[in-house]
Amino acid sequence: MDIKGFKFSAVEAAIKKPGRLDLALIYSEVPATVAAVFTRNKVKAAPLLLSIERALNHVSRGVVVNSGNANACTGRQGMSDAIETARLVADALGVHEDSLLVASTGVIGQPLPMERIRNAIPDLIGELSRSTLADVAQAIMTTDTFPKMEIRTGEAGGRLYTIAGVAKGSGMIMPNMATMLSFLVTDAAVDPSWLVELFSSEVDRSFNCITVDGDTSTNDTALIMANGMAGNPEIFKGTPEAAIFAESVRNILLSLGKQIVRDGEGATKFVEILVKGALSDSDAKKAAISIANSTLVKTAFFGQDANWGRILAAVGYSGAEVDQDLADLYFDDVAMVKNGVFAGGEAESLGSKVLLKKDFSVTVDLQLGTGSATVFTSDLSYEYVKINADYRT
Amino acid sequence: MDIKGFKFSAVEAAIKKPGRLDLALIYSEVPATVAAVFTRNKVKAAPLLLSIERALNHVSRGVVVNSGNANACTGRQGMSDAIETARLVADALGVHEDSLLVASTGVIGQPLPMERIRNAIPDLIGELSRSTLADVAQAIMTTDTFPKMEIRTGEAGGRLYTIAGVAKGSGMIMPNMATMLSFLVTDAAVDPSWLVELFSSEVDRSFNCITVDGDTSTNDTALIMANGMAGNPEIFKGTPEAAIFAESVRNILLSLGKQIVRDGEGATKFVEILVKGALSDSDAKKAAISIANSTLVKTAFFGQDANWGRILAAVGYSGAEVDQDLADLYFDDVAMVKNGVFAGGEAESLGSKVLLKKDFSVTVDLQLGTGSATVFTSDLSYEYVKINADYRT
Repeated sequence: MDIKGFKFSAVEAAIKKPGRLDLALIYSEVPATVAAVFTRNKVKAAPLLLSIERALNHVSRGVVVNSGNANACTGRQGMSDAIETARLVADALGVHEDSLLVASTGVIGQPLPMERIRNAIPDLIGELSRSTLADVAQAIMTTDTFPKMEIRTGEAGGRLYTIAGVAKGSGMIMPNMATMLSFLVTDAAVDPSWLVELFSSEVDRSFNCITVDGDTSTNDTALIMANGMAGNPEIFKGTPEAAIFAESVRNILLSLGKQIVRDGEGATKFVEILVKGALSDSDAKKAAISIANSTLVKTAFFGQDANWGRILAAVGYSGAEVDQDLADLYFDDVAMVKNGVFAGGEAESLGSKVLLKKDFSVTVDLQLGTGSATVFTSDLSYEYVKINADYRT
Repeated sequence: MDIKGFKFSAVEAAIKKPGRLDLALIYSEVPATVAAVFTRNKVKAAPLLLSIERALNHVSRGVVVNSGNANACTGRQGMSDAIETARLVADALGVHEDSLLVASTGVIGQPLPMERIRNAIPDLIGELSRSTLADVAQAIMTTDTFPKMEIRTGEAGGRLYTIAGVAKGSGMIMPNMATMLSFLVTDAAVDPSWLVELFSSEVDRSFNCITVDGDTSTNDTALIMANGMAGNPEIFKGTPEAAIFAESVRNILLSLGKQIVRDGEGATKFVEILVKGALSDSDAKKAAISIANSTLVKTAFFGQDANWGRILAAVGYSGAEVDQDLADLYFDDVAMVKNGVFAGGEAESLGSKVLLKKDFSVTVDLQLGTGSATVFTSDLSYEYVKINADYRT
């Protein structure tokens, strides 16, 4: 895999336990267009406050990421640590410090171990020619059990380009961003204003449609850098090239999003929740999110119990318009409920068989309109409780 | 305990497993004033749809309750079963069928076992002189591990009166009512319009301030019946007698609410969440509810981990106004965070000691205004997952 003009590095800075990569750098040899989306949580970590400002002009040389410490709720010290980290790396690279973004993920409320980060920076620069994006995917993991990466190639104006992305996140995952970091890089040349528009809307349709536990983190960051080194003519909105590029971005984001749900803390199930027939798309999304975040629904998934009543109850309190005498409900293709009433017959035994699968879908048809939404979620298991009861210890 | 003019009955109708009371009757020998609050879930069980209509004129002779089956998502059959249950009991009592309310709790989506209910009604009537309100408290339990009851006495115009209440609920508990039933009875004479106003506002301050898992059920019902048999002059709003009566109702509701949280499915902790210094009371309640419902916060409570970062993150995504550089956070009296930053020093070890307690409080001071709210919640344990994964099997 070669994404022209990008270099990657991942090293051990001893922020996490020994033997684990925890400091990474994505670097573009030339200034790249950058589009970024950040958490909507009103409590934002220092690296986000800094990166939000630096991403405003949509040009960047790269991003420095650490795992193991979120640098959140760390006050002025946290901000000065974020600034220093970027400055030290920028100085070593010989670029302007404002051209580097920063991202952090891990425990909240503890100061960054700056001495260790300072000591690791020469190594971080030295690894730039040896590490790959796959190493970055490793370095940004926290409770993740596997690294998450996706790649696509395309063609524009006779030139081949590559788009690749990595992501981390397995708990505190909820629409409007999660404890989730995702970095996409491409050597395609893309019109900056369209890239910003595209990335924001595609994140809405992917990362903002996954939920593990309904918690929105202080550190969520997703960004794409496009450095144009593929040599293609700039891709503009509304062209056939734009459609192809957009589809690749969408597929990468959706794939990364699904990988995150599959790696949901303690997850034993991967469930697609489709709500259709709603009065509006936003009503459909409210209902789908409500189902996906219900602890009663999620524990029933874990117990492989076809407890459709809890699903209808979750729709009922979602805020979406619903007529309880119209709603249909399916597990995969098995109709469990027709017009609000249990379908009876073989539905119970067939529905129970669906719940035994690792992957299945829940469809609710509200039969009120044409609004629809799809959300991906996991179940809630003993293991989720264990992981999160003991996270800091 | 004697509440003049009220009789109680609780029998086994074999709706639940053998040996458990599951059908109950609260009966007033004279027409009583009734005030009731029902779930705000848009999916409502048949007994609620019926009782909402029958409670409109604020006069009732009693309520028939079954546990083990919610009679929810049961369509027309469910409504006709609810009507028949009330009619059979009304006929046996010799009262008008419209004067009886009905309530159900248990599994959603299965038809009421009407044959068993019909067979049990003679017994239900026969027990009226032998059962007590404590038996009713037993009969309405589902996953509850103990019956919930509270009682107060008062005086008005030289006459002693009694107020007593029972409740059930231990999962699917969330503000705006829970899978929760609660019935209060008093022999005091109370102005009907004030009773309606009082009960609604006191439920808001008690049952709507508790949460176990954030799920709002299809069946929640809380009501109070006042039959005036104590012989006191009617209690009117704004009088000293009204203040005393209101305080008793408040204390009963709050006590029942706290009992429900203590009996939260799998709960090992009882946590009082106080948010103050908010821009408004409603902002404070948003923030408190968000903390109380966060699975990450609740698993940290279970793990006895003083993970205050998750609490601030939950405030951040609650929708309440927050300035992250102003918020203070306490575990009991231990300041963990001052102006958004970890207090350091002994805070970690002192805070961790607080978390070892079975009962403790979390206080967040947003330092923005004078809004405040208190919410009661439990932790999220392995046992919660176990109970809810296996509920129907």
